[in-house]
Amino acid sequence: MTKPDTIGSIGENESLRRTISRLNPATSALVGPGDDCAVIAATDGSFVVTTDTMVEGHDFKPYWSSGFDLGWKAVATNLADVAAMGAKPTAITVALVAPSDTEISWLEAFADGLKAGCEALAPGCGVVGGDLAAGEQIVIAVTAHGSLEGRAPVLRSGAKIGDIVAVAGTLGRAAAGLALLQSGNAGAISAYDDLVNTQLRPNPPISSGIEAAEAGATSMLDLSDGLGRDAARIARASGVSVSIDEKQLQGFEAVLEQAAQAIEADPKLWVIGGGEDHSLLATFDANSQIPRSFKPIGVVIEAGKAEVFLGGKPLNEQGWDSVRG
Amino acid sequence: MTKPDTIGSIGENESLRRTISRLNPATSALVGPGDDCAVIAATDGSFVVTTDTMVEGHDFKPYWSSGFDLGWKAVATNLADVAAMGAKPTAITVALVAPSDTEISWLEAFADGLKAGCEALAPGCGVVGGDLAAGEQIVIAVTAHGSLEGRAPVLRSGAKIGDIVAVAGTLGRAAAGLALLQSGNAGAISAYDDLVNTQLRPNPPISSGIEAAEAGATSMLDLSDGLGRDAARIARASGVSVSIDEKQLQGFEAVLEQAAQAIEADPKLWVIGGGEDHSLLATFDANSQIPRSFKPIGVVIEAGKAEVFLGGKPLNEQGWDSVRG
Repeated sequence: MTKPDTIGSIGENESLRRTISRLNPATSALVGPGDDCAVIAATDGSFVVTTDTMVEGHDFKPYWSSGFDLGWKAVATNLADVAAMGAKPTAITVALVAPSDTEISWLEAFADGLKAGCEALAPGCGVVGGDLAAGEQIVIAVTAHGSLEGRAPVLRSGAKIGDIVAVAGTLGRAAAGLALLQSGNAGAISAYDDLVNTQLRPNPPISSGIEAAEAGATSMLDLSDGLGRDAARIARASGVSVSIDEKQLQGFEAVLEQAAQAIEADPKLWVIGGGEDHSLLATFDANSQIPRSFKPIGVVIEAGKAEVFLGGKPLNEQGWDSVRG
Repeated sequence: MTKPDTIGSIGENESLRRTISRLNPATSALVGPGDDCAVIAATDGSFVVTTDTMVEGHDFKPYWSSGFDLGWKAVATNLADVAAMGAKPTAITVALVAPSDTEISWLEAFADGLKAGCEALAPGCGVVGGDLAAGEQIVIAVTAHGSLEGRAPVLRSGAKIGDIVAVAGTLGRAAAGLALLQSGNAGAISAYDDLVNTQLRPNPPISSGIEAAEAGATSMLDLSDGLGRDAARIARASGVSVSIDEKQLQGFEAVLEQAAQAIEADPKLWVIGGGEDHSLLATFDANSQIPRSFKPIGVVIEAGKAEVFLGGKPLNEQGWDSVRG
């Protein structure tokens, strides 16, 4: 048997060539990959940009996540940030660090995941540049760009007292998936693989971001660190507090109930504290027409002794710190 | 004595807060750091984007490079790619992975290096977003953006037979600096610290990129992997060969001669094979007015049996492969 090709054995240029050839083009790319820079259309005279990193062992385990999963997730997490401004994703760049003994088949699967993620979540968006380097562990740094198409960006700082707080997308599913993987309970993992899949390949509601902007959302962000923690960010940036209605979370909890029982967990903690569904949290004027993809879960109130209240009680921040874990 | 703060001990949010507060604003930022995305002006309806990664142990040694050096270098290497399109750098994002026991003072020095690099090389350009994550080794992934200000991008593929090949900036200085560091010869390192400094904090001729574009350069790239290897990239992309005049390189070699003697090295290899000065290599129509910052070093000829000729003889590619080393 011949040894499989690795990125170290065939080198950076050939590895990149094999990878780039698998990607979909970005429709906004005036100049695509292969030169010193790509050139991207920004027809309304501006662009939005965000960057996010995934580190092996800290943000993912290679025995849980395939190359395809990681390519998809890297796209999804970054596009959610673009959507949270009210922008349409246009182009991403990918910096990948991987051990030199990484097999090319892994790299190809990673590229396929990038492509599939773009095509599923934001058709027309594609990879326009990248870099490949050798290192001790896999690091994936994606920078994503989007177009506001003439809309004003939706910031975190615009929530006003009396606004409705609403969420587009799921809550707690990715956290449930992570808990299932961590449980090692093969039967439960198999029975609730849809939750595991949300952890490995999240499906953020990208187009809901544009809907929210068009509906006049007063603030918005993507729920990457959990409802409690991210709602506090809006509260802090806007100088208000957020009051979440426990009853409105029951629907999110109910669909996780069985999986929670299987591994003796509390679904409420997943819904309140779990990130990584990359759903969108937004606030809307109480008199506005809230898009159907957003479910009201609370109201914006005067800044109080806590940034977030749940069922009237102060909610401690629960979430994820990327350097402390 | 109290223990120094580390990014692990004070956490991601506080670490980012202390870092961001040290940075200079980008003049093109309509919305700066702190939200899901930054919003950047792109007044001519497009932007250029590039990404480049530096990995501890592969691209730098922490005992040679300070946090400040690395911040500066990360800016310089990426802005050179922006300049090589004929664009003016506007905004960068920085993804930093570092061990959780990294001291905050290192992170602050890194931020100071980012700021100093932007201010020295491309005033008005600044950091508009970033990410901080824990990992086994330091990884710095920068994505840089620029504005063509209405100019056409200068690609690698436009070189025509008869064009003059010219270089802006230095050749071989960074390679000399690396060889000095590797020699461990403390006397030579001290005597030629200007060469060492070019390795640690390169000074690419950013504004020369715009000058070249305005003068109608037919092709351009930044010399990151060495003259031989990068000239071959222009030759390949343009379907031509590049013939370099040995005599025109003598000036570059002469200034390295003494340092080369001190550590018994060949300065010609530094000039031909050394990257990391991040100078600009461009081609110009023979009848055009070549900007004064560019020095002619050769001509574009019909595609021959080699992509690059030096003194009429085929030049083997010499350079750096980022995954094989």
